[in-house]
Amino acid sequence: MNKFELHILGCGSALPTMKHVPSAQVLNIREKLFLIDCGEGTQLEFRRARLSFGRLSHIFISHLHGDHCFGLIGLISTLGLLGRTGNLTIHAVAELEEVLRPQLNFFCQGMSYKVIIESFDPTKNEVIYEDRSVKVSTIPLDHRMPCAGFLFEEADYDLNLKSDMIRFYDIPVKDLPDIKKGKDFIMASGEVIPNSRLTHPKVHARKYAYCSDTAYKEDIVPIIKDADLLYHEATFLEDNAARAQITRHSTARQAATIAKMANVKKLMIGHYSSRYDDDSLFKKEAQEIFPHVILANEAIVEKL
Amino acid sequence: MNKFELHILGCGSALPTMKHVPSAQVLNIREKLFLIDCGEGTQLEFRRARLSFGRLSHIFISHLHGDHCFGLIGLISTLGLLGRTGNLTIHAVAELEEVLRPQLNFFCQGMSYKVIIESFDPTKNEVIYEDRSVKVSTIPLDHRMPCAGFLFEEADYDLNLKSDMIRFYDIPVKDLPDIKKGKDFIMASGEVIPNSRLTHPKVHARKYAYCSDTAYKEDIVPIIKDADLLYHEATFLEDNAARAQITRHSTARQAATIAKMANVKKLMIGHYSSRYDDDSLFKKEAQEIFPHVILANEAIVEKL
Repeated sequence: MNKFELHILGCGSALPTMKHVPSAQVLNIREKLFLIDCGEGTQLEFRRARLSFGRLSHIFISHLHGDHCFGLIGLISTLGLLGRTGNLTIHAVAELEEVLRPQLNFFCQGMSYKVIIESFDPTKNEVIYEDRSVKVSTIPLDHRMPCAGFLFEEADYDLNLKSDMIRFYDIPVKDLPDIKKGKDFIMASGEVIPNSRLTHPKVHARKYAYCSDTAYKEDIVPIIKDADLLYHEATFLEDNAARAQITRHSTARQAATIAKMANVKKLMIGHYSSRYDDDSLFKKEAQEIFPHVILANEAIVEKL
Repeated sequence: MNKFELHILGCGSALPTMKHVPSAQVLNIREKLFLIDCGEGTQLEFRRARLSFGRLSHIFISHLHGDHCFGLIGLISTLGLLGRTGNLTIHAVAELEEVLRPQLNFFCQGMSYKVIIESFDPTKNEVIYEDRSVKVSTIPLDHRMPCAGFLFEEADYDLNLKSDMIRFYDIPVKDLPDIKKGKDFIMASGEVIPNSRLTHPKVHARKYAYCSDTAYKEDIVPIIKDADLLYHEATFLEDNAARAQITRHSTARQAATIAKMANVKKLMIGHYSSRYDDDSLFKKEAQEIFPHVILANEAIVEKL
């Protein structure tokens, strides 16, 4: 199966702790790496995870709080020192241009590659990136500043042909594209060969939804419906539900409720507040609502 | 003895490695913490070293290459989240204002304390900070951009009185300040009590010199003369002396030559290029010139 796996590089919240570094994840889709958020120290975690800087493709920044973007300038500089030549595109709210560009102009003069900032509207659910393997769309979230999550949907690939059957029926090359799309084949004799005899069963197109940072927001359920994996922030436990409400964050229970409503296969929680010493409490609270809970940590690689 | 100790938080060079993070050091002088350079991830290393954010006093930035200053914005934000109220002064070249202030305006609105940037002229050797315990002056260095090292000189404290002797001669309180400054005492009888009988021997005023980043520069020798500890960058070994020359860095041998000429007690080297796997080669090369060499690493706490 084609690679579609998630590396957690950081899953803490704003205050650094001895256990967790700020938010950053890498989604590896067929060896193309997509970076999601980029807190301070991301480039170090990227290296620790033994990921290849050369395979870094696009970067997606959910919002402009420091724990989600302070690592950008260091990472960009390092890619320059390493001699990158291909453009690097960062998808973020428009304000990133005004805050990052002056730093690039000062620190990254004469760099061997270009940084392109493509802005999105975080209040809309729309496609912001697409290639042959994946489509990325925004998930409007509810935080103290404009903020969007990201839904990564694997491309709906063509069917794979059963080569022995193609040879057996002696099907001309010109007809193969239609068969890959699901069409039956009609022989010169008029006999119909059903598509299912000519192709392997459809491969499930995988979906990963990233939702950090956000208050409890039921509106996102239809967007993330049936995802194979949902990462949903759980900054607090229910003992701090009032504080979650004020700061526009979620509790573990709320994250699990969204996961259940959206019928996702698995829920990963993270963005833990530094006030809690024991991460397992988050899992315990979430599992009262939804069984398949993964606690994010900086060593996790989750295959979808 | 009063505390005067150096914590190495980072001693790598521009490219991050699995062994070293970028430049940052903390000098603890009587529980007042002075941060010297602030590469990405400094706030994490600060915490790992179990230093108290509340005791952080002034910050000194040698120059504006990213591996010496990218950690500032994260550290400043964290101090804000922790509710700091006292001003934080950063000593740096004037350009820091133009590159850091827009970030502060964007990310640190409504913060509970003020960040003051005090600029210095890196081409001059002058005092840029002084309090009751320490005097800090700039050391003009030779790098690809304006850059200065820092000399920390412990204050020349008053002499400590021998209280039993003060009582024995029944010396009035009004005369004690003069005695602490080194004066003899004249009794009503005309008898002269020499100062050495009334005070403990003078405590040595310690000196720490920080020199990173720089090409070999003999001019600095008179400034750092007789320092108790010299940190001098050694980005390269002699096998890359030509590259050191071009990039305005030093080799381990050059660092040791400066240490020897300046008659310092100990030399610490760091800022190792990522191209070398074995740090011990730096020590070996330096020790051919100067015997007392310490290899910087992120766990070192050196008492002066």
